[in-house]
Amino acid sequence: MNASRSSPQTGTRTASGGVVPPVVTPLTEDREFDVPSFERLIGRLLAAGVDGVFVLGSTGEAAFCTDELRVRVIEEAVRVTAGRVPVLAGVIDTQTDRVLRQLEAAQEAGADGVVATAPFYAVTHAPQIRRHFETIGERADVPVYAYDIPLCVHTKLDPGMLVELGLSGALAGVKDSSGDDVAFRRLALHNRAEGGPLTLFTGHEVVVDGAYLAGADGVVPGLANVDPDGYVRMHAAFRDGDWAAVRREQDRLAALFEITRVAGSVTGWGAGVGSFKTALMLQGVIAHNQLPEPFGALDGDDVEAVKAVLGTAGLLPPLPPPPLPSR
Amino acid sequence: MNASRSSPQTGTRTASGGVVPPVVTPLTEDREFDVPSFERLIGRLLAAGVDGVFVLGSTGEAAFCTDELRVRVIEEAVRVTAGRVPVLAGVIDTQTDRVLRQLEAAQEAGADGVVATAPFYAVTHAPQIRRHFETIGERADVPVYAYDIPLCVHTKLDPGMLVELGLSGALAGVKDSSGDDVAFRRLALHNRAEGGPLTLFTGHEVVVDGAYLAGADGVVPGLANVDPDGYVRMHAAFRDGDWAAVRREQDRLAALFEITRVAGSVTGWGAGVGSFKTALMLQGVIAHNQLPEPFGALDGDDVEAVKAVLGTAGLLPPLPPPPLPSR
Amino acid sequence: MNASRSSPQTGTRTASGGVVPPVVTPLTEDREFDVPSFERLIGRLLAAGVDGVFVLGSTGEAAFCTDELRVRVIEEAVRVTAGRVPVLAGVIDTQTDRVLRQLEAAQEAGADGVVATAPFYAVTHAPQIRRHFETIGERADVPVYAYDIPLCVHTKLDPGMLVELGLSGALAGVKDSSGDDVAFRRLALHNRAEGGPLTLFTGHEVVVDGAYLAGADGVVPGLANVDPDGYVRMHAAFRDGDWAAVRREQDRLAALFEITRVAGSVTGWGAGVGSFKTALMLQGVIAHNQLPEPFGALDGDDVEAVKAVLGTAGLLPPLPPPPLPSR
Amino acid sequence: MNASRSSPQTGTRTASGGVVPPVVTPLTEDREFDVPSFERLIGRLLAAGVDGVFVLGSTGEAAFCTDELRVRVIEEAVRVTAGRVPVLAGVIDTQTDRVLRQLEAAQEAGADGVVATAPFYAVTHAPQIRRHFETIGERADVPVYAYDIPLCVHTKLDPGMLVELGLSGALAGVKDSSGDDVAFRRLALHNRAEGGPLTLFTGHEVVVDGAYLAGADGVVPGLANVDPDGYVRMHAAFRDGDWAAVRREQDRLAALFEITRVAGSVTGWGAGVGSFKTALMLQGVIAHNQLPEPFGALDGDDVEAVKAVLGTAGLLPPLPPPPLPSR
Repeated sequence: MNASRSSPQTGTRTASGGVVPPVVTPLTEDREFDVPSFERLIGRLLAAGVDGVFVLGSTGEAAFCTDELRVRVIEEAVRVTAGRVPVLAGVIDTQTDRVLRQLEAAQEAGADGVVATAPFYAVTHAPQIRRHFETIGERADVPVYAYDIPLCVHTKLDPGMLVELGLSGALAGVKDSSGDDVAFRRLALHNRAEGGPLTLFTGHEVVVDGAYLAGADGVVPGLANVDPDGYVRMHAAFRDGDWAAVRREQDRLAALFEITRVAGSVTGWGAGVGSFKTALMLQGVIAHNQLPEPFGALDGDDVEAVKAVLGTAGLLPPLPPPPLPSR
Repeated sequence: MNASRSSPQTGTRTASGGVVPPVVTPLTEDREFDVPSFERLIGRLLAAGVDGVFVLGSTGEAAFCTDELRVRVIEEAVRVTAGRVPVLAGVIDTQTDRVLRQLEAAQEAGADGVVATAPFYAVTHAPQIRRHFETIGERADVPVYAYDIPLCVHTKLDPGMLVELGLSGALAGVKDSSGDDVAFRRLALHNRAEGGPLTLFTGHEVVVDGAYLAGADGVVPGLANVDPDGYVRMHAAFRDGDWAAVRREQDRLAALFEITRVAGSVTGWGAGVGSFKTALMLQGVIAHNQLPEPFGALDGDDVEAVKAVLGTAGLLPPLPPPPLPSR
Repeated sequence: MNASRSSPQTGTRTASGGVVPPVVTPLTEDREFDVPSFERLIGRLLAAGVDGVFVLGSTGEAAFCTDELRVRVIEEAVRVTAGRVPVLAGVIDTQTDRVLRQLEAAQEAGADGVVATAPFYAVTHAPQIRRHFETIGERADVPVYAYDIPLCVHTKLDPGMLVELGLSGALAGVKDSSGDDVAFRRLALHNRAEGGPLTLFTGHEVVVDGAYLAGADGVVPGLANVDPDGYVRMHAAFRDGDWAAVRREQDRLAALFEITRVAGSVTGWGAGVGSFKTALMLQGVIAHNQLPEPFGALDGDDVEAVKAVLGTAGLLPPLPPPPLPSR
Repeated sequence: MNASRSSPQTGTRTASGGVVPPVVTPLTEDREFDVPSFERLIGRLLAAGVDGVFVLGSTGEAAFCTDELRVRVIEEAVRVTAGRVPVLAGVIDTQTDRVLRQLEAAQEAGADGVVATAPFYAVTHAPQIRRHFETIGERADVPVYAYDIPLCVHTKLDPGMLVELGLSGALAGVKDSSGDDVAFRRLALHNRAEGGPLTLFTGHEVVVDGAYLAGADGVVPGLANVDPDGYVRMHAAFRDGDWAAVRREQDRLAALFEITRVAGSVTGWGAGVGSFKTALMLQGVIAHNQLPEPFGALDGDDVEAVKAVLGTAGLLPPLPPPPLPSR
């Protein structure tokens, strides 16, 4: 990142931990971007006390949005958050030059930070992956977070490389969605040994407690679209060192996460984001649970199944008051 | 595909088999698109008698080119070929809506056909993959070819689905780079049993003879950038039923393909396309063997190693006259 | 292999190409080894003119048979073949010392050659895989064939290593079930360039024609349990250079191979071997189509589906006379 | 498991949690089983206060030991432990009937429980995997633990199936070496919701703290061969609810685990177990760090590298007194 990184405009809105939900992108039934729903959703997240929002992640439909839509999503997120929390934006694309274009567009649209994956589609190895992040880091005017998501890009980021890129200033942090808790421990240990150049987020919403023990600074939980209060409470308990409360909240959220497994008619990406959107529709936060092509909205029994899990969790309107502090 | 598919403008330039090289995208040392080199390369392919050209495939750097560059590559290919052979263009992008944008741009730039992969990055399964191709087929004004390339998209296309999409008119053909010869045989058998709705190309340049036996109509060989004459001769021998000649030519080309394995400093995509570009530079066809970020050009010992293989194959200038017909 | 390799006892029964079916291991309904059925099956293969038999391969249930049963299977195969063709035996086990025990037992039971995979279960890499085969080769008194089957052992054997092990005398040949026709071409080219130290078999019954073009000396087709005559005819056509006949026979056999895909109630290993055994039962060759634990025999609609494919192929009794030579 | 499961002989030695190291199998330089070293090693583990020992796991060289050696290893472990803690034995083999033979042998040799993986080598799916464990459970006279180790068997065990097998009595517990902490959380939640039929062990020595939070009852840490005291202390802190101490100990042990990554000459299984054996040799516990074929012992710089990590951790003789309790 170049010198303007610490400029007043952006320096005050760095994502340095806490709860940063990967916000879903609501669509109308006709698959148009549903701005009022997006506004309500972000408003609710801010009310819950999240520490930032992350748009255009895997959950945020980056892979489905045209470039024009990506810009609109960022612009609306920036407008709605109005500087209260940082807005991170995914700059997901196949290889370096295409990512740089996404970076330019994201910065112009006002993103406070960007999140980039390893190169994908064409096969690359360690030297290219390093160079890819170095190049992005050099060209960025905002903090860059590495997005470790082998499920999507079929490459695991090396913990040693990540810490070196943190020390060199190319990376500000990591969002770990690798599903590899052993590697995450190594990353956290290396990072701490080197003075903590990286802010570490876990993307796995059902094992955040373990990630906190390992050294995570924050979490980017897709499920926080549905229950932001739970993640904010869990993070507060973590800061207080109240591990019993952390664990209790995590167990509750892990049970809620079953919404992503109850749909019978869809699998893969559509089962996860489809259930988040369905839950948000049932909660009255967004207007429709439509998904982008080539997926379709959950309906019929699948909606009922999501509703049942939400009901059990007490997350259907009228919503209950938040629980009292546990101590 | 809609009604204009059989319009006079495009109907005469359908790729219905033969040799259709996936053309590399030459760059200057500064990584600008090198149009004069591109022109010489296409000219040479046409002189060899290829049946079409395929730009913006995996070999053609689709994953590395910005959208602007993609359009320029197609426009130049259309200009240089001047209607003598069809120009197929890759419309490589992650999910349906993004591919549709690539499709619009490719058509506007004059492509005679487009080549689309399964969705990638976000995980999809059979129903979404089918719908993806159906949607592309409905929206396209030119023939659509399915690009089966699990190495890049991590999904194998089902032979039964492909034939059904051929029968429905969504697909005109398949470029098979799956590396799964058993599945290709099934595809060819199914296709023949249904009257051959699909034109079948293999993308594996070293086993084209077996693919012809199995039922391929043509080949999309990256190595044809380096030795187009060999592939044209092999296809002619195939049409003549001269299997001994087919096999002899294939063995020779398979030996030449070792250029993709001799580089010591690079692996993955860069080893393959890097060696093709290096060979073309050594042959005087393109000016520089530069690769896009995050790769660098082959140099030093790697260039010498490519040169040695080329020399053994008699493919360094001054090039020998083409061999006499073998019978 | 030590000096006794060329001893009169074994030297005359080396598998040097042709059709070598991986014989299924018939079971009674109670899952006892059904020797009379095994005898009929081998008798039929010999009558068809196969060049060897391969017991205890993946098709032959090696992974399911106890050590005691493995010995019995080899002994019966040796007894029934009575020296007319070589008997190859799989020595499938996880790591070197366990394979050496299988080797000793197989030799003692009279096997004319053994077939060994790369190590599996514990993760090994190139140096260990090479040493594994070297050790087996040193200890064997009969020819050793490398079994390249990544589907089962999750390691692909390197063509260069295989040829070196052929040159050193450790390996007599390769059974390629890798599904990687590109690598098989490389293997065949390297092998030929080094004087052909290895006898090359393909294990993929539906693309044998392409493998012959690439350089295969023979085939180990599971489907030959069901139609040995077809594979023997195809090999004869290959020796005669009659590629049109090779291809015709291969297309017919590839259509027959659909028996492995029609079962609705079982997947994986059980679908393949289950359909072979079912076809053999329907043809009256073996008494029952039972499978070893944890699989069960195909029944009901699955048997009918196999029957339908067999009937279409004219392979249900009373069987038709063999076709006249095609030229 | 049949009725004798709760017999007095075995019922008192059920592994119901705590620290159960997967004991390495020491070899002499000539690759003979080194019983005196094995005795010293087990003695040391018992002195540290472990809750059981697990022989013939992946770490214990099950895949490398002949059947005869497997029996000897179990017999010696039973003799040395003399009933003080339960002895679990791996019954690792490819498919059901072969595992049943291993089960019989293990029981006869005196094992208090057995640990079985999913079937491997031949491809199986959910119905066969379930039947496999059911059959083993029916035939066993001792508790059966499922070993979830996709790295070796290339199948992930389904949490729902495991809990059902626990409820039916087929399984007593699970050793989770899947590397999938998200699935482990689901397993733990399901298990708790069903009354906890399964005892849950994690096999990942560097993230045990997170596993405890998720619901693990114990740990099977390869690294406990080298530092049993650390794992026993961590488990005690877990029982006391002292999460800060758990985490501190885990971070220390995770740093020590780097011994498995410092060898430059070997990868895969040999790097892990090779480093454990080397550390034990340097500590004077076992006589030699030999590995089974096709691996060789670590030597030269690799031994020095292991020594350096051990020294930093204060784990070289003369060993320091154990640290005082941290609170």
